[in-house]
Amino acid sequence: MDMSKVKVAINGYGTIGKRVADAVALQDDMEIIGISKTRPNFEAKTAAMKGYNIYAPADKIDSFKNDGYTIAGSIEDMVKAADIVVDCTPGKIGVSNKALYEKEGVKAIWQGGESKDIAPISFNSEANYADAIGADYVRVVSCNTTGLCRVIYPLDQKYGVEKVRVTIVRRGGDPGDIKSGPIDALVLDPIKLPSHHGPDVKTIMPHINITSAAIKAPTSFMHLHVLNIQLKTECSAEDVKNLFASRPRIRMIADGISATAQIIEFGRDLGRPRNDMWENCVFRDSVSVDDGELYFFQAIHQESDVIPENVDAIRAMMSLEKDNLKSIEKTNKSMGIGFKC
Amino acid sequence: MDMSKVKVAINGYGTIGKRVADAVALQDDMEIIGISKTRPNFEAKTAAMKGYNIYAPADKIDSFKNDGYTIAGSIEDMVKAADIVVDCTPGKIGVSNKALYEKEGVKAIWQGGESKDIAPISFNSEANYADAIGADYVRVVSCNTTGLCRVIYPLDQKYGVEKVRVTIVRRGGDPGDIKSGPIDALVLDPIKLPSHHGPDVKTIMPHINITSAAIKAPTSFMHLHVLNIQLKTECSAEDVKNLFASRPRIRMIADGISATAQIIEFGRDLGRPRNDMWENCVFRDSVSVDDGELYFFQAIHQESDVIPENVDAIRAMMSLEKDNLKSIEKTNKSMGIGFKC
Repeated sequence: MDMSKVKVAINGYGTIGKRVADAVALQDDMEIIGISKTRPNFEAKTAAMKGYNIYAPADKIDSFKNDGYTIAGSIEDMVKAADIVVDCTPGKIGVSNKALYEKEGVKAIWQGGESKDIAPISFNSEANYADAIGADYVRVVSCNTTGLCRVIYPLDQKYGVEKVRVTIVRRGGDPGDIKSGPIDALVLDPIKLPSHHGPDVKTIMPHINITSAAIKAPTSFMHLHVLNIQLKTECSAEDVKNLFASRPRIRMIADGISATAQIIEFGRDLGRPRNDMWENCVFRDSVSVDDGELYFFQAIHQESDVIPENVDAIRAMMSLEKDNLKSIEKTNKSMGIGFKC
Repeated sequence: MDMSKVKVAINGYGTIGKRVADAVALQDDMEIIGISKTRPNFEAKTAAMKGYNIYAPADKIDSFKNDGYTIAGSIEDMVKAADIVVDCTPGKIGVSNKALYEKEGVKAIWQGGESKDIAPISFNSEANYADAIGADYVRVVSCNTTGLCRVIYPLDQKYGVEKVRVTIVRRGGDPGDIKSGPIDALVLDPIKLPSHHGPDVKTIMPHINITSAAIKAPTSFMHLHVLNIQLKTECSAEDVKNLFASRPRIRMIADGISATAQIIEFGRDLGRPRNDMWENCVFRDSVSVDDGELYFFQAIHQESDVIPENVDAIRAMMSLEKDNLKSIEKTNKSMGIGFKC
C-alpha cells in the first residue's frame, strides 16, 4: 500500500462500479483498496482476475469462499480501510449505506440514481468542481444530467443561456441487461411533463431555465438528446461547433456516423475498454442555428460518461487538486479521453 | 355498378391502398371499381377474397392467371373505368403514373411519400378541405404531417400559433416489414436539421412557424411526437385538453396507457380493423403549460391516420360535399371514428 495515494473503496461493482474502479486504478494519486460484491457472478470473477481485493456482506462471505473466492473481509472492513468510498450500488440503495460511512468517518460519493438530497453537493467537473473541494459527501449527477451540463455550461459561460428545451430518447436497457424493456414500443418516461432531467440540471446550475421530456425506446447502446437552446447573445453554428470542439469532454461526431450504434462501433474500433464513450458525442452536422435558436443532437453513453467525473470528484473532495481543468486534464490523459481524430 | 356513386380505383394495394379500399367501400357515395397489384402476394389473395376487381400490369396478367387469379384487366383499363384514382404506389413511384391519369382524364390523389410538387394542392381535411373542391390533382400529406396539422390547425384557429417545435421519434418499419431497421440504434433522420416534417406542414398552412427534428427507433407500432408550441394568447392545459377532445380526429389517451404498444393493444381490444388508430392519440396527462408554452406527447399510427383524409379528399375533389365538417362526420361515422370511450 502506497501511503501517498488516496485509498478508494468501490461499494458495488456493477455497470458503474467496475468502470470507476478501472479508472481510479489508472490514477497516480489514488489506489483501489477494494471493491464489494454481494453475489459471486461474472463481474466478481473479473474483479478477482484483475486482482482487486473483494469484500462482501458478512453473511455472504462463506458462500463466496465456497465458490473459490478469496474474500478480504466484510463491507464494514472495506469502509474502515478507505479514505473515500464511491457508492455504486443500484439507485435508491446507496442511501441505506450513508449511516455506515458516517459512522466510520469516511467521505462518500453517490451516483445520480440517488435523490439529490443524499449529499449537499451535486457534482459536474466543469460546472461546479470548486464546490466539492474538501467536501465529505457528493453526488455525481446521472449520465443524462452530466451530458446536459457539459454542453449547457460552456454555452452559458460564453453566450448566456436564455432557455433550454430537451427531448431525451433513452435506451430501454444496457446491452447486458436481459430484464428491461420495451421490446417494441415507445414509452413516455414519464407521461407528465417535465421529466426529472431538467430539474436535475438545476442542482448543478440553479439559474438555468430548462425543461425536458423523455421517452424510452427499444435500444441498448446510448441515450440521444435533441436540444433546442435559446442563447442571450447571437452566435453562428460554426461558433458553437468551435466552442464544443474546444471542450475537454465533448467529441464532435462526423465521418458518416448518423446513429448511436455506429458511435459504439467506433468506440470498439478505437480500442476503448468496454467500447466506452466517456465524452458527449455531438453530431457535428446537426449543429444549426434557426430563427435565432440553437439546435443539435448529442448521444450520451449511459454506462460510462460519469466515470471521469467520479475520478475528478475524488480529487476535489480529497483536496488533491484545486483547479478543475488540471484535474480534468489529468483524468482525461490517464483514460485516453481527448484524442480527437 | 351504381351510376350514382363515384367510381374509385386504387392503384397499389399495399399498406395504404388496402386500407383506403376498405374505407371507400364503406361510403354510400363511392364505390371501388378495382384495385391494382403487381405481384400475386398475400395482399392480392385477400383482395380476391374480399371480392375487389383486381387489375395488373399488362405483362403480368398471365402470371396472375397462372396462379389462379381472375384479372379484370390492365391498369390502363382500370384507370379508364374510374372517375378518380387513389395512387397508393410506393413513395416516388406515383409520379410516374401521372401521365396515364392525365391521358385518361381522371382525377388523382397521391400520398405524402410523393414530392409536394406532384399536385397543386396538399390536403388535410380540417385545415384546407375547401381548396380541394373540384380539384383534379391532390396530394394527401404524410401520416406525420397529417398528425401535426390536426393539432396545430385548431390551436392556431383558437389561440394563434407563434412557433412550433416538434421532435418526431419514428417507427423504424411497419409490423409486417421484414427489411427495415434499425434493430438496436437511434438513427438521426436526417442529421441536418430541420427534418422535412416542419416544412411539409407549411404546404397546408404556409404561415405556421415550425421546426422539426426526427429520429428513427427500433419499433414498429406508431410514431411519437414531442410537441412544444408557443401560442399567441394565453390558455391553460385544461383549455387545450377540452379543445382537443372536441376535435373529430383526436383521441385523448389515458386509462393507464403510457406507450405506443398499449395504444395498439387498445385498438385490438376495440375490434378496429387491422388494429388501426385513425385518430391522433394525444396523451391526456402530458398536456401541460410551462413557462407560458404548451407541451404534449401524441402517438400517430403511420399505417392508418391518412385513410379518412383520403376519403374526404375524394369527396371534395368530386364535389360531393362542400362542407368539410360534414364530410369528416360522414367518413368518421362510416368507419367508426369518434367513439370516445
